[in-house]
Amino acid sequence: MGNADYVYPSTNVERAHRAAIPPPQPFLKSLKYNLKETFFPDDPLKQFKNQPTSRKFVLGLQYLFPIFEWAPSYTFNFLKSDFISGITIASLAIPQGISYAKLANLPPVLGLYSSFIPPLVYAMMGSSRDLAVGTVAVASLLTASMIGNEVDANQNPRLYLHLAFTATFFAGVFQASLGLLRLGFIVDFLSHATIIGFMAGAATVVIMQQLKGILGLDHFTHSTDLVSVMRSVFSQTHQWRWESAVLGFGFLFFLLTTRYFSKRKPKYFWVSAMAPLTSVILGSLLVYLTHAEKHGVQVIGYLKKGLNPMSFTDLVFVSPYLTTAIKTGIITGVIALAEGIAVGRSFAMFKNYHIDGNKEMIAFGAMNIVGSCTSCYLTTGPFSRSAVNFNAGCKTAVSNIVMALGVMVTLLFLTPLFHYTPLVVLSSIIVSAMLGLLDYEAAIHLWSIDKFDFIVCLSAYAGVVFASVEIGLVIAVAISLIRLLLFVARPKTFILGNIPNSMIYRNVEQYPNTSSVPGVLILEIAAPIYFANSGYLRERIARWVDDEEEKLKSSGETTLQYVILDMGAVGNIDTSGIGMLEEVKKVMDRRGVKLVLANPVAEVMKKLDKAKFIENIGQQWIHLTVGEAVAACDFMLHTFPPNPLKEDSEAYNKV
Amino acid sequence: MGNADYVYPSTNVERAHRAAIPPPQPFLKSLKYNLKETFFPDDPLKQFKNQPTSRKFVLGLQYLFPIFEWAPSYTFNFLKSDFISGITIASLAIPQGISYAKLANLPPVLGLYSSFIPPLVYAMMGSSRDLAVGTVAVASLLTASMIGNEVDANQNPRLYLHLAFTATFFAGVFQASLGLLRLGFIVDFLSHATIIGFMAGAATVVIMQQLKGILGLDHFTHSTDLVSVMRSVFSQTHQWRWESAVLGFGFLFFLLTTRYFSKRKPKYFWVSAMAPLTSVILGSLLVYLTHAEKHGVQVIGYLKKGLNPMSFTDLVFVSPYLTTAIKTGIITGVIALAEGIAVGRSFAMFKNYHIDGNKEMIAFGAMNIVGSCTSCYLTTGPFSRSAVNFNAGCKTAVSNIVMALGVMVTLLFLTPLFHYTPLVVLSSIIVSAMLGLLDYEAAIHLWSIDKFDFIVCLSAYAGVVFASVEIGLVIAVAISLIRLLLFVARPKTFILGNIPNSMIYRNVEQYPNTSSVPGVLILEIAAPIYFANSGYLRERIARWVDDEEEKLKSSGETTLQYVILDMGAVGNIDTSGIGMLEEVKKVMDRRGVKLVLANPVAEVMKKLDKAKFIENIGQQWIHLTVGEAVAACDFMLHTFPPNPLKEDSEAYNKV
Repeated sequence: MGNADYVYPSTNVERAHRAAIPPPQPFLKSLKYNLKETFFPDDPLKQFKNQPTSRKFVLGLQYLFPIFEWAPSYTFNFLKSDFISGITIASLAIPQGISYAKLANLPPVLGLYSSFIPPLVYAMMGSSRDLAVGTVAVASLLTASMIGNEVDANQNPRLYLHLAFTATFFAGVFQASLGLLRLGFIVDFLSHATIIGFMAGAATVVIMQQLKGILGLDHFTHSTDLVSVMRSVFSQTHQWRWESAVLGFGFLFFLLTTRYFSKRKPKYFWVSAMAPLTSVILGSLLVYLTHAEKHGVQVIGYLKKGLNPMSFTDLVFVSPYLTTAIKTGIITGVIALAEGIAVGRSFAMFKNYHIDGNKEMIAFGAMNIVGSCTSCYLTTGPFSRSAVNFNAGCKTAVSNIVMALGVMVTLLFLTPLFHYTPLVVLSSIIVSAMLGLLDYEAAIHLWSIDKFDFIVCLSAYAGVVFASVEIGLVIAVAISLIRLLLFVARPKTFILGNIPNSMIYRNVEQYPNTSSVPGVLILEIAAPIYFANSGYLRERIARWVDDEEEKLKSSGETTLQYVILDMGAVGNIDTSGIGMLEEVKKVMDRRGVKLVLANPVAEVMKKLDKAKFIENIGQQWIHLTVGEAVAACDFMLHTFPPNPLKEDSEAYNKV
Repeated sequence: MGNADYVYPSTNVERAHRAAIPPPQPFLKSLKYNLKETFFPDDPLKQFKNQPTSRKFVLGLQYLFPIFEWAPSYTFNFLKSDFISGITIASLAIPQGISYAKLANLPPVLGLYSSFIPPLVYAMMGSSRDLAVGTVAVASLLTASMIGNEVDANQNPRLYLHLAFTATFFAGVFQASLGLLRLGFIVDFLSHATIIGFMAGAATVVIMQQLKGILGLDHFTHSTDLVSVMRSVFSQTHQWRWESAVLGFGFLFFLLTTRYFSKRKPKYFWVSAMAPLTSVILGSLLVYLTHAEKHGVQVIGYLKKGLNPMSFTDLVFVSPYLTTAIKTGIITGVIALAEGIAVGRSFAMFKNYHIDGNKEMIAFGAMNIVGSCTSCYLTTGPFSRSAVNFNAGCKTAVSNIVMALGVMVTLLFLTPLFHYTPLVVLSSIIVSAMLGLLDYEAAIHLWSIDKFDFIVCLSAYAGVVFASVEIGLVIAVAISLIRLLLFVARPKTFILGNIPNSMIYRNVEQYPNTSSVPGVLILEIAAPIYFANSGYLRERIARWVDDEEEKLKSSGETTLQYVILDMGAVGNIDTSGIGMLEEVKKVMDRRGVKLVLANPVAEVMKKLDKAKFIENIGQQWIHLTVGEAVAACDFMLHTFPPNPLKEDSEAYNKV
């Protein structure tokens, strides 16, 4: 009672503020605004405004090719830094490229090709200064499993290769289209939790695949799920090669030790960056000297000398394989985009510059389209390589050019050196890189903050490990979407209470010291009112009112006279929602309870007005704040005793 | 400036309220609460609480069979009313039943069977007092087109018939399962707008199909889309029968006139209710006397005498047809549910009693399962028949029993009378019923209130008319869902301003008389912060801040010192959203702008606390209301001049 007394004298119904209907807007204007917010939220054309045509041309060129923006101010000091970082990432790119190409069941030299042309394209078109371009394990695995379902890489290597190029082409087309059509936000639908689970699952799968190399097995399952792989490994225990396993675990130990060391002392980042190349050199020397290739240690073998051959004519656009290529392209393209853009954004935030997601997508797309025509497969900006690039002190995308030149020299002169490189070393390199993706700490963090995100993460992981990479992804995205839909379908409703000595009303569960107002039930609806929840809300509001009346009846104090709906958090309403409010109004009238609205937002107010609901409920029963609504109810309760009011509202009902 | 001065003396930072973290809840308790709200929002077990076992049994029986609830208090007066309304709807049910069975390409007698058993089941299990059970045109058409795709009704009528029973069986199983699994809310996903467009589209398609009967054509397309039907009609103009057309339009005119009359004078509801049966009798007499059946007027022909034969053994559960039956069952089942439940609810609201959606679904499901075993096809509660029932003054479901008895008498003794009934009369009956479903006024209403709902409605209509019933439905549901997702993916953000002489802050577009606070930017985010929008919100907040800084720079007055985010409408947040807030905080720190939060709700506050974001931002920068947040900022601005503060926040950044 106390707070009601407090509220009462401080306002009166006359002076209270009115909830306003926003000034009417022409339909086309509001449509234009909404389309702009949906597709151009970053306002990319802002800088073009009020510029002469020649300037517009230069700006446009700089927009598509950021190199024209930063190249003029490039200095020798930048070059020094970029040279060092470029050489460092080249030494990482060569062994990683070969390893991932093997993972994709493609000729190892493709890994080198893919570290030559795409980085050059990105250096011209990309806007990140820290991204290092290259192939990634997850996309390689996906290529192997999705194209492998259609064509066997061992039986028909040519067709398999051409399909990989075609998939890369479609990935590029898809990426560039997303960027051009301003649909970059589709990537946002892969939530943080999905990506953590998915990446960890993919890493697990990739590590399991390496058992083939480490155990020196000749035959291996084409499936990627845990059960098939384990069955394949343990059904041929007699084929295990101890020489291979010893080498593998030895190098893995070496790689992990150097990584641990570099992590502890970031100044020595180059130790872990150089470790893979060192392993390759050591491994090759060892095999060459001991002739281990004749004792069951498999080696890379002949690598073709020379730069990327053209592959445009190899693209396959004929019917039975086209669908596979497009499907593989789209899925790998999205995954690659998600990783590349997240990596670019993180480093940009670190160094405080801006990355335009849609522009980056065009750059990635162009890079993969050009790549698919020059014997490369899918590339993006892998996290590990970019981190090394960043730690090595890169300043601009020139470090990518330096890396490309390093790979070029390798391709032209050094490929014979890899003849004796044992496959098991490549497996060790992959395993050591993948262990970093098993981010169990992030999963624990998700559990502690948001259980639902943890479930999403876990389903993505389990889906990838026990079914397949695509299924895991689909499950995780589906669960995430269901969560969004559930938020709308089952909106939260709260009872509000008065915070002592104020006109503020808040959720009684969050603020236990609030007090209720006798005869008045205040409900907050915390989501837009749409068709998907209008049925639920009708039931829920009725239940709140039932419960309140029961409570009041048992206490015998007073009867329920007013229900105030706080609409502040109702961002929008559709015709089903308005229908629901009309029903609630009718039901309340019949029960002799007055329905009052507080703080409807512009959009809702506009629609309620058009649907004549404001007339129906009465303008004076829509208030600007809950406090004023309560004050008005309180004023009426004190001025007219409950009973006549009930009759009044019944009379109203008959009109 | 004025309002800032006004706000400043009225509060100080010490006295302001704190935003509270809600008391911690055990995980299992909150999980249980959420599950209950999702699946048991109507708390169906409430009445069972604290009752002895015998009472619980009675209540359970009454829950499943509401007839036990109302039968004991049934009076003779009720019977009089129910008898009149039952006879009225029987006279409507007989010709409509035969017509719709023809529409479904099923033997006409099935329409009578379906008006005998299912109404009896519903009378025991249903909770609506006004619903009249029967077959509906849309579901009949869907059955014809979906099963017709698999089996030709003319070439293999037996299999077609059995598949129709099987589809009805699965529709019933699906409906009952939805009810038992408490998934009734799935029906809510068919929005009001979808249903209007869909119904109008289906009515158009059904009317087009009647051209066959009215023009007396022998051959007709199996497709339902506008283009195919028009091509079929105009490719055989030489086959048109003028006798048939004259009869058809004559009866159509008669039916529409009686309907118009009854609509103007509701007391004479029976005029339009009796009109179809009158048409059938008149038409049959005419044909019998003129022998028109020998001059191109097609008649129903032989109708088998006797009650429903059992059909349980006819259900087809074998492989090639099972999928079709299940698909047809699910789609027709959902459509039938949507209509039946909406109809039940509308009349219940009129008479002020309660309908439990999930319970109704179980009743509909049982009715169709029993129906499928007794030679009936899909039934529900059609709007037209229920409206006649209501107008005729029905009191309880006994009117359904009276109707069933009327149909039974017809089946036992009167079927030979329908031998000479011309098909064209049935077509006229269908067309006249369907014209009422073309609710163009509702579509105009949608356009004036909510453009998006209008688009949904129009796409459903166009999809049904130009493609197929299923495609129209899928398109409309997909667009509706995209709207929900867009609401979350592109949340509204507003600038808030101070309402004069108050501490209230509201959207400046809705309340143009608000004034801004110098040096402080107040933003409201009007949706939950989820992965799907965190990228967008990061960009959008940055753009608001850019715009504000530019505006301040050009006016040269002051610099931006504070950004207050009003989180009152942010119903929830996930880990991606928290990550976004952390990024915004970092960026703001770097720009020397302080981030302040106002009014986070319980759920958000809890998660921000767990993620240590509250520590990060500082408890003193999270306020209960925007007003208090502004007062605190204002206090700081007056106490410390801007410059030291900027350095301070930069120093903060380095920590």
